[in-house]
Amino acid sequence: MSRDLFRSRLDLVGGRVEMTHGAGGRAMAQLIEAIFQPALANDFLGQGNDQAVMPLPRSGRLAMSTDGYVVSPLFFPGGDIGSLAVHGTINDIAMSGAVPLYLSVSLIIEEGFPLADLDRIAQSMGAASRAAGVPVVTGDTKVVERGKADGLFISTAGVGVVPPGLVLSGDRARPGDRVVLSGSIGDHGIAILSSRENLEFETAILSDSVALHDLVAAMVAAAGPHLRLMRDPTRGGVAATLNEIAHQSGVGIVIEEGTIPVKSQVIAACDLLGIDPLTVANEGKLIAVVDPAGAGSLLAAMRAHPLGGEAALIGTVVEDDRHFVQMRTAFGGGRIVDWLAGEQLPRIC
Amino acid sequence: MSRDLFRSRLDLVGGRVEMTHGAGGRAMAQLIEAIFQPALANDFLGQGNDQAVMPLPRSGRLAMSTDGYVVSPLFFPGGDIGSLAVHGTINDIAMSGAVPLYLSVSLIIEEGFPLADLDRIAQSMGAASRAAGVPVVTGDTKVVERGKADGLFISTAGVGVVPPGLVLSGDRARPGDRVVLSGSIGDHGIAILSSRENLEFETAILSDSVALHDLVAAMVAAAGPHLRLMRDPTRGGVAATLNEIAHQSGVGIVIEEGTIPVKSQVIAACDLLGIDPLTVANEGKLIAVVDPAGAGSLLAAMRAHPLGGEAALIGTVVEDDRHFVQMRTAFGGGRIVDWLAGEQLPRIC
Repeated sequence: MSRDLFRSRLDLVGGRVEMTHGAGGRAMAQLIEAIFQPALANDFLGQGNDQAVMPLPRSGRLAMSTDGYVVSPLFFPGGDIGSLAVHGTINDIAMSGAVPLYLSVSLIIEEGFPLADLDRIAQSMGAASRAAGVPVVTGDTKVVERGKADGLFISTAGVGVVPPGLVLSGDRARPGDRVVLSGSIGDHGIAILSSRENLEFETAILSDSVALHDLVAAMVAAAGPHLRLMRDPTRGGVAATLNEIAHQSGVGIVIEEGTIPVKSQVIAACDLLGIDPLTVANEGKLIAVVDPAGAGSLLAAMRAHPLGGEAALIGTVVEDDRHFVQMRTAFGGGRIVDWLAGEQLPRIC
Repeated sequence: MSRDLFRSRLDLVGGRVEMTHGAGGRAMAQLIEAIFQPALANDFLGQGNDQAVMPLPRSGRLAMSTDGYVVSPLFFPGGDIGSLAVHGTINDIAMSGAVPLYLSVSLIIEEGFPLADLDRIAQSMGAASRAAGVPVVTGDTKVVERGKADGLFISTAGVGVVPPGLVLSGDRARPGDRVVLSGSIGDHGIAILSSRENLEFETAILSDSVALHDLVAAMVAAAGPHLRLMRDPTRGGVAATLNEIAHQSGVGIVIEEGTIPVKSQVIAACDLLGIDPLTVANEGKLIAVVDPAGAGSLLAAMRAHPLGGEAALIGTVVEDDRHFVQMRTAFGGGRIVDWLAGEQLPRIC
């Protein structure tokens, strides 16, 4: 659309989102043209229709996922709601073994939200999307009255293509399988909590928020036929993810505490806050279950990748009708790793 | 997952959404199992992973769309936010000429929201999805603290497949093309406004919210090669949609007031409220632009379909460097049909 449509320029420094920016008229078109089109620029988004039309892969199966993002605060050490919304949905698609192809984004904005913050978040989405090579092809903005939302919520959806013959699913773990973790845990949750509670540590803890699809591609290339499933331990942390797998597959899981990578400052923060690192959200880590024959080549491929340098074999799938996740501690004892009962860490993602 | 996971049953009569229902643990699993799995039941959703994996069409192109729904009130005459979220996204996909295939749904819920309302909305989504034959294959729920949202927001995304050779886009209107409208305008917006303002009319005005993809399929079958574009006049109404098309295609559009179907009670309500029916949102109507040679067969096919019985030829595309939309009135005069300048009808969808 041509610039002459708009009577005045959008004030990206001191301006604020108004109800008209969600009304489907000229102001909304201006918001999209001034902020989202430049930040997310790609040919599909540029089609300017209420949907985007793209080439379709000619083989494989279609993976689809969606996530809502309500993280508070919107900006945190190591990221913001924009990059998080891109990484999180790419990762949910990638956990099926799929190559992520396209993203959509739906923004629900509170009236009065600073346009400068909106612009910064849109640019962060664009940067994350370009770095991952997964374009945001279509989007929608809605505005609700002041007090009816908390600044900004984002829902992203995405699609990808699963290579022919690859079947990963939470119900495929079998006794004897190995459990692999791609790196240190708890960074995202602790980064959010620190910035929310104004905690300061000697070394800043940054969110690990990152797109994992390239690591996944390396894992599939190295050990595809041996892989049972992958899942990223976000809300509820490693504890929730392992319990989900145990219940979905009808098995037990035994993990070794000493093998689980955790940064010393994350341990310190968890001690201070009285929380268990196993229950803290991650946004750039994955858990894979692999048959014993594939574990070695899988771990080697992960460790050779920049996002899997600390990959570790953390446990084994066992027979257990109770579907318990158990941890052997460093001192030779053991405990049950349960799901979180209550809400320990609200709005972590 | 087995029922023994959950310590107590969810109270779907008097219960309310708590923060734990969004925490990624047992309570969230219970919410999904008690409300969403039964309401939306299908094999893809039943995979129980963070993404769904489906067969991929072997020809055509991929259409993708998303929309956020923030309608207030959540329940209105003729529908609710659940059915609206299904219809709206199906329609955005269908406007590309695509056959809609799969939907995703992201819910952002305010703490304290009644579980009975959530269940009713989930059932409404399920009914709309089954009636349309387009399954909700994956979803996500987030919960935010009381006062940080307005009950419930839904973002749906969807994908579909555009038949080979069919290219519809907002920039394809050419002078001489005909503009076709599928039925009477203003019903959805007036239904929302009436229930919001407690207006009562002699005859209740119901939202026209409905899935249009079956009508679209009939139109493509009858006049596919003649179709330039389709668009559904939602936010901003017919006025916004025609202005978008005029700007995107670099043309003018002239419509005839007397040809536009509007129910008498909608006209009465608009008079009372001081608004123009052309600017009121619709959720079950579409505008098509077709070359002159295809207009006859297109109109005939539309009128033979249950959702197009009142289809009408309402105007013509003309050359106009100013990209004006003009209306000839019943008395032979004329006026410019502009986009809405302000926010007349907030949270209509």
